[in-house]
Amino acid sequence: MIDSLRRYMPVLDWGSRYNRSAFSNDMIAAVIVTIMLIPQSLAYALLAGLPPEAGIYASIAPILLYTVFGSSRALAVGPVAVVSLLTASAIGQVAEQGTAGYAVAALTLAFLSGAFLVLLGLFRLGFIANFLSHPVIAGFITASGILIATSQLRHVLGIDGHGHTLPEMLWSLLENIGEINWPTLVIGVSASAFLFWARKGLKPLLRRLGLRPLLADILTKAGPVAAVVATTLAVWQFDLAASGVAIVGDVPQSLPPLTLPSFSPDLLGALLLPAILISIIGFVESVSVAQTLAAKKRQRIDPDQELIGLGAANLGAAFTGGFPVTGGFSRSVVNYDAGAETPAAGAFTALGLAIAAVALTPLVYFLPKATLAATIIVAVLSLVDLSILKRTWSYSRADFSAVAVTIALTLGLGVEVGVGAGVVLSLLLHLYKTSKPHVAEVGLVPGTQHFRNILRHEVETDPTLVTLRIDQSLFFVNARFLEDLIQNRVTEGCAIRNVVLMCSAVNEVDFSALESLEAVNARLTDMGVGLHLSEVKGPVMDRLNRSHFLDQMNGRVFLSQYDAWMALRQPDGPKGQATAAALG
Amino acid sequence: MIDSLRRYMPVLDWGSRYNRSAFSNDMIAAVIVTIMLIPQSLAYALLAGLPPEAGIYASIAPILLYTVFGSSRALAVGPVAVVSLLTASAIGQVAEQGTAGYAVAALTLAFLSGAFLVLLGLFRLGFIANFLSHPVIAGFITASGILIATSQLRHVLGIDGHGHTLPEMLWSLLENIGEINWPTLVIGVSASAFLFWARKGLKPLLRRLGLRPLLADILTKAGPVAAVVATTLAVWQFDLAASGVAIVGDVPQSLPPLTLPSFSPDLLGALLLPAILISIIGFVESVSVAQTLAAKKRQRIDPDQELIGLGAANLGAAFTGGFPVTGGFSRSVVNYDAGAETPAAGAFTALGLAIAAVALTPLVYFLPKATLAATIIVAVLSLVDLSILKRTWSYSRADFSAVAVTIALTLGLGVEVGVGAGVVLSLLLHLYKTSKPHVAEVGLVPGTQHFRNILRHEVETDPTLVTLRIDQSLFFVNARFLEDLIQNRVTEGCAIRNVVLMCSAVNEVDFSALESLEAVNARLTDMGVGLHLSEVKGPVMDRLNRSHFLDQMNGRVFLSQYDAWMALRQPDGPKGQATAAALG
Repeated sequence: MIDSLRRYMPVLDWGSRYNRSAFSNDMIAAVIVTIMLIPQSLAYALLAGLPPEAGIYASIAPILLYTVFGSSRALAVGPVAVVSLLTASAIGQVAEQGTAGYAVAALTLAFLSGAFLVLLGLFRLGFIANFLSHPVIAGFITASGILIATSQLRHVLGIDGHGHTLPEMLWSLLENIGEINWPTLVIGVSASAFLFWARKGLKPLLRRLGLRPLLADILTKAGPVAAVVATTLAVWQFDLAASGVAIVGDVPQSLPPLTLPSFSPDLLGALLLPAILISIIGFVESVSVAQTLAAKKRQRIDPDQELIGLGAANLGAAFTGGFPVTGGFSRSVVNYDAGAETPAAGAFTALGLAIAAVALTPLVYFLPKATLAATIIVAVLSLVDLSILKRTWSYSRADFSAVAVTIALTLGLGVEVGVGAGVVLSLLLHLYKTSKPHVAEVGLVPGTQHFRNILRHEVETDPTLVTLRIDQSLFFVNARFLEDLIQNRVTEGCAIRNVVLMCSAVNEVDFSALESLEAVNARLTDMGVGLHLSEVKGPVMDRLNRSHFLDQMNGRVFLSQYDAWMALRQPDGPKGQATAAALG
Repeated sequence: MIDSLRRYMPVLDWGSRYNRSAFSNDMIAAVIVTIMLIPQSLAYALLAGLPPEAGIYASIAPILLYTVFGSSRALAVGPVAVVSLLTASAIGQVAEQGTAGYAVAALTLAFLSGAFLVLLGLFRLGFIANFLSHPVIAGFITASGILIATSQLRHVLGIDGHGHTLPEMLWSLLENIGEINWPTLVIGVSASAFLFWARKGLKPLLRRLGLRPLLADILTKAGPVAAVVATTLAVWQFDLAASGVAIVGDVPQSLPPLTLPSFSPDLLGALLLPAILISIIGFVESVSVAQTLAAKKRQRIDPDQELIGLGAANLGAAFTGGFPVTGGFSRSVVNYDAGAETPAAGAFTALGLAIAAVALTPLVYFLPKATLAATIIVAVLSLVDLSILKRTWSYSRADFSAVAVTIALTLGLGVEVGVGAGVVLSLLLHLYKTSKPHVAEVGLVPGTQHFRNILRHEVETDPTLVTLRIDQSLFFVNARFLEDLIQNRVTEGCAIRNVVLMCSAVNEVDFSALESLEAVNARLTDMGVGLHLSEVKGPVMDRLNRSHFLDQMNGRVFLSQYDAWMALRQPDGPKGQATAAALG
């Protein structure tokens, strides 16, 4: 009982060894992460099309739940850019932004996503995420970065804009370009310029001013806070809201409210597929961050437990006014660099954000949306990496095509089509590669008892005997290929009287492959050709013995391929001529 | 040009060698198949919910087109039971039976199915059909047989009935059981009883009467014709239509009309997925019949060309008043047994059916629907094979679960859900199996230069050195598994200083796996552990050289595993102790 609790709640493990030193390290990390998260949470709520407080709520309960159920020591959970974009795209199709239905749809999406992740974790199905290939993920993240940055341009320009694809967004910006709000543009551009500079130039400057490297690093990461403070003060001081600068405005002073997702079958049905996509993309990103950070301390994470942790976080978001969340790269790195030792750092961060939600929200009344847009743009442009096109091109055309298709479709037709096409393409490439098992026709190396590929070695063969070495387990994806291969090989050589399948590398024969072998046997019998097996492994033989195949098979099972050769070759026939026939 | 025409039109190949002997054999086969096809075509049109003539039209143009494009010598194309059921289920969701929209939907389904098959064939994507595992197909066919037989009971009872799932159908029969039409029941039951008896008892009887075996066999197959003639005469003689026996009624005397499928995006969208299912199921069934018959004469068929042949047949059905077709088992066997030598037999069959469509349709005016239902029931019950449950249970639990789920969902939730779930389950099982590559930790066999699995052999190991032999190509599905495996193995042994990946069985490293190796290298570097490769194959090495991985890798590439062992083992350290540690 305790063991099973411990398995699903890693907190019981690290919590029992928690001490004062870990506490103070976690506390320091939490303060730093909290300061960084306030503008980030507001910004990603904006990106998801939700009111700013939703971003803060989405960082409180989810972090607490991840603390209890997650397996990574450093992962910081909350709204992240790509997931917020996917959220906006998914719920934009079922509700109008700004309506109550929109917020409920966001809760429902988080609920579905959380439930799906928990189910995957409980059934240990995390391997499903493996089927998003790296090129597809890289292409998708890059294209999403471009889409997100473009979607925020309207806030920087102070104009209207809409659309879920790059052409739609650009067209909509062009249509409204005449209505630029100049004070907004000044704020947006200067905030962006400052933030870009801060990423590269602030740290060396702080070091030259005599700060310690760690502190300089952390202050650099807090650049967005400086931009927020400066632009908020400017708007307040010069009353820029009256000049048309869009501001955050009233944010309720409250702890996260208790909320309920919708359980309407229509809405659940419409959001199921987007929820699955969001879950898997979020999980893949999160696990790779967690693995990288864990390796630095020679720790390990458990991907199936991560599913449960992230699932619990999303369920938490669904019931406390949030939206879909996952482990974020930048916040996790800050958390790790600031010295977080245990997930308790996350709990303290949640506490900090709860205080902010209750006490600090009036301070962001005059915060211009252009500043939030600038923080998003600067953050996501670091995700854009078009060099992946060049790297995959030089490495493999198949991988290149997966990247190119994913980028093109994500930009041109939207995130869901893009990632969907990427997944389908990955799967098709995978299915195609595995549907053709490697099969080599082999012959005897003269003077030995070894059999080698007739295409690569000088070997003895017999025109009446075909020996095929099967270099892969046999199951339904490649069973039919083997049927075709044997039938084609036998119909092309009229002298063939026996076929031997050399099974030294076959670890499994599933029921489909068994039926294929039965079909091959029946067809070879019709042609008057014998079917034999050699070097069948013990477990495979046990299983074949439980079927009727061995009774029906018209030939024999030989312990070694050499036995088969000695028994089946033509005693006085010509040697070494079948090679040419087989190649011809 | 001619070669490419020949490739896509096998008729140019066999047609050029056509002679008088083949002609007379084909002609005889065609007469026999035509007689058998008339009641069958009417019956399957009834099953698909279409007017009777649609079944005859669906056998004319499709057969002609298959003659030109198909690669099998004996396959007979036309309406078949399972595809007709799938058709009824798919178009029942978009149109009301008996309306003009229903017939147009059937044409559109045939069009989509034909277009999909031709595309698969042109792009040589026939391997996609491999992902329907044998257990899923067997379960689906069995459940479909039960559904079809149940759906025809209402015609035998002469009552109303509806539903697409077994519970719906049974409930609907129970509701209307009070309205049984007794003359219909007598006809239906006696036709069924005769046909069941004819399958087993007619042939021995005819043999005893002195007929030659072949003739007896063919007359037995013509049993349905006898039932049709007898019951039609009975209805006409005793005016049973006036007593409420449902009859076929007026069938237009006409050659197949020219028709157009609908190109409305809504309808195309709604029918796309069913069309794909129908295509793949039809293709799988058809190819397995064609392979079996081809093997009997040591001929071969080309699965990609079969896609084109079946696709052309369905496109033909779409433009000539038909519905989806495929290669049928029983008619192909009759065609083969009756001595068909070339696809020309199909062309002659089409001619026979065209004559029937023009001249013979008035003869079926009094044909009772109960007789057609009886022929369907007797035909499909031979598809029902519940022994598949027992056979898969004793062979493999995974395969059993695929059969059981497919049967249960097909019966309980309908054909589309059933086969959809079967496909998804097949894919998940496949993905799961391929996502865990076989990796063995190896050690040196004392006194040799061979390395073997430490779990199976007495080998020397070194506590600072972990050697993992990777027994599969590395690509995106298993790349992350390898990452986890290495990280877990290294974190559990604190003394480990070097990891060697022995790549003797790795034929490919795709871009995802390359990035996983880069991540493994970065993480091992963080842990102070060296990463090395050994026995990398030439083509893999060429490709790795085109990336930056080898420059970044903190260790070396060794030509042989023995070189790696000699270079990396602790010169004076304890030997043979790591085995226990690794197992512990």
